Amino acid sequence: MKQPLTGIIPPMLTPLRGIDELDGDGLAKLTEHILAGGVHGLFILGTTGEGPSLGYRLRRELIERVCRQVQGRVPVLVGITDTAFVESVALARQAADAGADAVVLAPPYYMPEGQPELREYLAHLLPELPRPLFLYNMPPLTKVPFELETVRWALDQPRIAGMKDSSGNMTYFNQALGLARQRPDWTLLTGPEELLAESVLMGGHGGVNGGANIFPALYVATFEAARSGDLIRARELQRRIQSVVDKLYRVGQHPSAVIKGIKCAASCLGLCSDFMAEPFHRFRDPERRRIEEGMAELRAIVAWK
Amino acid sequence: MKQPLTGIIPPMLTPLRGIDELDGDGLAKLTEHILAGGVHGLFILGTTGEGPSLGYRLRRELIERVCRQVQGRVPVLVGITDTAFVESVALARQAADAGADAVVLAPPYYMPEGQPELREYLAHLLPELPRPLFLYNMPPLTKVPFELETVRWALDQPRIAGMKDSSGNMTYFNQALGLARQRPDWTLLTGPEELLAESVLMGGHGGVNGGANIFPALYVATFEAARSGDLIRARELQRRIQSVVDKLYRVGQHPSAVIKGIKCAASCLGLCSDFMAEPFHRFRDPERRRIEEGMAELRAIVAWK
Amino acid sequence: MKQPLTGIIPPMLTPLRGIDELDGDGLAKLTEHILAGGVHGLFILGTTGEGPSLGYRLRRELIERVCRQVQGRVPVLVGITDTAFVESVALARQAADAGADAVVLAPPYYMPEGQPELREYLAHLLPELPRPLFLYNMPPLTKVPFELETVRWALDQPRIAGMKDSSGNMTYFNQALGLARQRPDWTLLTGPEELLAESVLMGGHGGVNGGANIFPALYVATFEAARSGDLIRARELQRRIQSVVDKLYRVGQHPSAVIKGIKCAASCLGLCSDFMAEPFHRFRDPERRRIEEGMAELRAIVAWK
Amino acid sequence: MKQPLTGIIPPMLTPLRGIDELDGDGLAKLTEHILAGGVHGLFILGTTGEGPSLGYRLRRELIERVCRQVQGRVPVLVGITDTAFVESVALARQAADAGADAVVLAPPYYMPEGQPELREYLAHLLPELPRPLFLYNMPPLTKVPFELETVRWALDQPRIAGMKDSSGNMTYFNQALGLARQRPDWTLLTGPEELLAESVLMGGHGGVNGGANIFPALYVATFEAARSGDLIRARELQRRIQSVVDKLYRVGQHPSAVIKGIKCAASCLGLCSDFMAEPFHRFRDPERRRIEEGMAELRAIVAWK
Repeated sequence: MKQPLTGIIPPMLTPLRGIDELDGDGLAKLTEHILAGGVHGLFILGTTGEGPSLGYRLRRELIERVCRQVQGRVPVLVGITDTAFVESVALARQAADAGADAVVLAPPYYMPEGQPELREYLAHLLPELPRPLFLYNMPPLTKVPFELETVRWALDQPRIAGMKDSSGNMTYFNQALGLARQRPDWTLLTGPEELLAESVLMGGHGGVNGGANIFPALYVATFEAARSGDLIRARELQRRIQSVVDKLYRVGQHPSAVIKGIKCAASCLGLCSDFMAEPFHRFRDPERRRIEEGMAELRAIVAWK
Repeated sequence: MKQPLTGIIPPMLTPLRGIDELDGDGLAKLTEHILAGGVHGLFILGTTGEGPSLGYRLRRELIERVCRQVQGRVPVLVGITDTAFVESVALARQAADAGADAVVLAPPYYMPEGQPELREYLAHLLPELPRPLFLYNMPPLTKVPFELETVRWALDQPRIAGMKDSSGNMTYFNQALGLARQRPDWTLLTGPEELLAESVLMGGHGGVNGGANIFPALYVATFEAARSGDLIRARELQRRIQSVVDKLYRVGQHPSAVIKGIKCAASCLGLCSDFMAEPFHRFRDPERRRIEEGMAELRAIVAWK
Repeated sequence: MKQPLTGIIPPMLTPLRGIDELDGDGLAKLTEHILAGGVHGLFILGTTGEGPSLGYRLRRELIERVCRQVQGRVPVLVGITDTAFVESVALARQAADAGADAVVLAPPYYMPEGQPELREYLAHLLPELPRPLFLYNMPPLTKVPFELETVRWALDQPRIAGMKDSSGNMTYFNQALGLARQRPDWTLLTGPEELLAESVLMGGHGGVNGGANIFPALYVATFEAARSGDLIRARELQRRIQSVVDKLYRVGQHPSAVIKGIKCAASCLGLCSDFMAEPFHRFRDPERRRIEEGMAELRAIVAWK
Repeated sequence: MKQPLTGIIPPMLTPLRGIDELDGDGLAKLTEHILAGGVHGLFILGTTGEGPSLGYRLRRELIERVCRQVQGRVPVLVGITDTAFVESVALARQAADAGADAVVLAPPYYMPEGQPELREYLAHLLPELPRPLFLYNMPPLTKVPFELETVRWALDQPRIAGMKDSSGNMTYFNQALGLARQRPDWTLLTGPEELLAESVLMGGHGGVNGGANIFPALYVATFEAARSGDLIRARELQRRIQSVVDKLYRVGQHPSAVIKGIKCAASCLGLCSDFMAEPFHRFRDPERRRIEEGMAELRAIVAWK
């Protein structure tokens, strides 16, 4: 990659019909809905895509279907995070074979590695990957972050194209941004949508934001306002994103509530099934009703097309 | 199971020759070494066995080889912990086909479940398991514990035979022990070997202790001393176990140091290779020398046969 | 001190009539109630005594009144934990003047010190203290523990007489016990009452347990059973202590629930007022009723005199 | 206060000559140095001011001296955080008597309160305070944050004038900013200087940043650039602030390194003594030399006058 990947790259939901069965129609519809919002890429098999909860056969099928559906209209990034090295490599090869543009990897997340262990692991992994790698910094779920010393090391690896930072820590993000000034092709994207506007105002390249499954155009507009330095509009659009967060992600009390909320909202829009992979389970009626109400309010607030 | 499983059930190392290759000779030797120490069972594909770091093909091969080697001399327990439901079920079936006696499961460990989600997941999983299930409480690695309300629920599930508690929290352990008084067939084992004597003194059923890969007879003797209420001897043997911890687990600074130390010690004894699955890597020479020195001192302290 | 301080040293409640006013009658009654249970010492101005929440004038008054009431029947230990060095020193002098036997200190608890900073601080503090010092390990509240390297250092300081460990971590406790074998006069006491029996079974010297404000004889009996190696009785009495925990400390949902519960129970027994120092507030009626019910059940379970 | 307090309000160091002795000359010099940088207020007895480590007599003396030195040129805010209610009230009265403009309070920081307890405590405290109150959100040190529900409550208290947020969590900051839109007189300031530019870009009112003790004009210029929407300049100045952080706060390995670094830098500038209150201790020669080198590099980078 000669240029950073800029813009909104939604972490796509994985529409499911059952525990080991894709919702193929839903997948096609959801993909078109997102692309119609003007997004700049698509990221599958991430946290929002329930990647780690899916069996390997289904992950392969998903990769193939999405690449076929997108047909090169935007870059497709595929999550290959795994606790087992050989399974990450296998997924990376399948992704390349299917035509994906890049792979995305968080640190192995069972026994926590030290940073030297993590760098050695990456050094062993990189030659096995047929496509460029994006790091995925997600310490709340992996326990292990990519510490700044490891980011500094990664900037010297031509096969590492950038990082998605989901730490929610803007001090870290800004420091990583400072380091990346030496690699003008490097991409730094933010995960938490609450931080989209300010991370772009500070020089970040865009967002991998779950809410862009539902309202892709809102996230694209926020990115563009911040990118162009329109402070008033950026703050105003960011407040609408905060409304999405407030209405859709706070129904239910466990961390999975965010994904359940997005999946339920997608189902309310008629895009796809809200079946969740174990150990999670779709919202029951009372929660679903609150999401429906939230969506009704958001229609007015977001005014998306 | 009509009776609790009592005694020492070592969490066996997985001897490896390469990234996706078992060390078959080492595996046979290590198995015989452990059984010769008088242990009461064998637990494979746990944390010490680097379960989550191994590819699925290799996991299957390991299950088959160990069951064949043990030939029913002691019960074999197989770890099936996974973030993907369908992969846990597949492993459980392979374990049953190979002749294993029970399976062991920690909570899915990527996105943290709430306890109601965890119970619903278990309720869906239990009918798919052909062998009894032991819970594996390991909050430092899974983030999610089996909280006491979930233990209470588990006591009502006939297919759940007990729990291995690796929390290191004796307040929790004692409370779980109190709850389990209603199920006289239920097993409660402790993971951290530093707590072996006292957990048995308080009524626990035994230990799943990594050091028993190296010195199985020491752990069996400690269990027996505590079981028979011989306080003086139990304290004295427990201090020897503390020496094992001090000499073998504190070389290297990352959490993986414990497994690296045990694997290196097994290699020093000529039992098996010390190759580690990614993202971890065997000790280099300086660390290996410290383990060798530790083993020399331990020979005198432990006086094992 | 030539001998370790062994037995039960309750962390006494501070009976209050108002925000800056002691309940003098309650204090006398409570002191006599506790001493009548056969305890081996009294610890004031600890966590259960709401030490950090009390103004300095009131702390001084409390020290004087308790020393006068106890009149040397058992040793009195006085908490001098403070974020300000000069205030700790002032309290230590007032305690000595009033006739207290020792002082107790947790690490300064605002900005967390590193261990070298903590040792240097202790080295500066010790010459200012007219009485022996007990360390108070309470990492959940101070953030900073006395790490084992600091315990090792403390064993070389003749003015440090021992440690109360409230970490709840038996691995740490056992290791501290191992280190202390070089100082036969050193005391190691456990804070969490859930761990009283086993810590004494493993060689600990006793407990500083909040429930001994209410049922002092139960804690003394548990200590004695464990001390004499009567496993069956120790387990059985420890289960009664667990009932105290279950009935009195789980009403209300914040960490302060433990102190509120003990203070409310003392008030139910007619011992003293349940007024709490800010930022905490006594139980309202619904909670008080649950404590009353708990006490009714405990009367049968504990069968104390 | 009719208007929010905007701009840079440095958390002033407390120059000390000894454990209970102010460095009066240093205090006067430092005050003038800071004011000469064009700051908009002064905050004493905060974390950077080592408030909790100082004896009460010395705190009173500090309040009086600073108010006398400032003579109304900028508002003076006084930290009254304490674990004891009565001591906070006493400090607040002394501050008012000395002519301070407002008081600043973090949650009592020993036993963690629940949010309802915290609100009840604040409700009892507010009538005792003769000056407006700023909340001080500092969860890494107090354990307890002001959760958003408590911020919402605080917005209904006319005596609460705003909040300094030192959480470092921009998601929280943005949400608090959204809530505060209902109170146009409310102030929201950011603590961590790494977040100064972006918090102002998002609508925040300014910063309470430790580095402004040394380079006040740099922080004022960064605030102004962000306030006026000059993105390029705001990013550039923010990078210089990051250099201050990198050069001055990373010498030494404990959390106190930040304060030690600022105090050492002030001493290098000849402003005041670098004596630290216990349990902390000024940098020794090797660390001091690194700070001197850092200051030499910063002179070029910051180009302050």
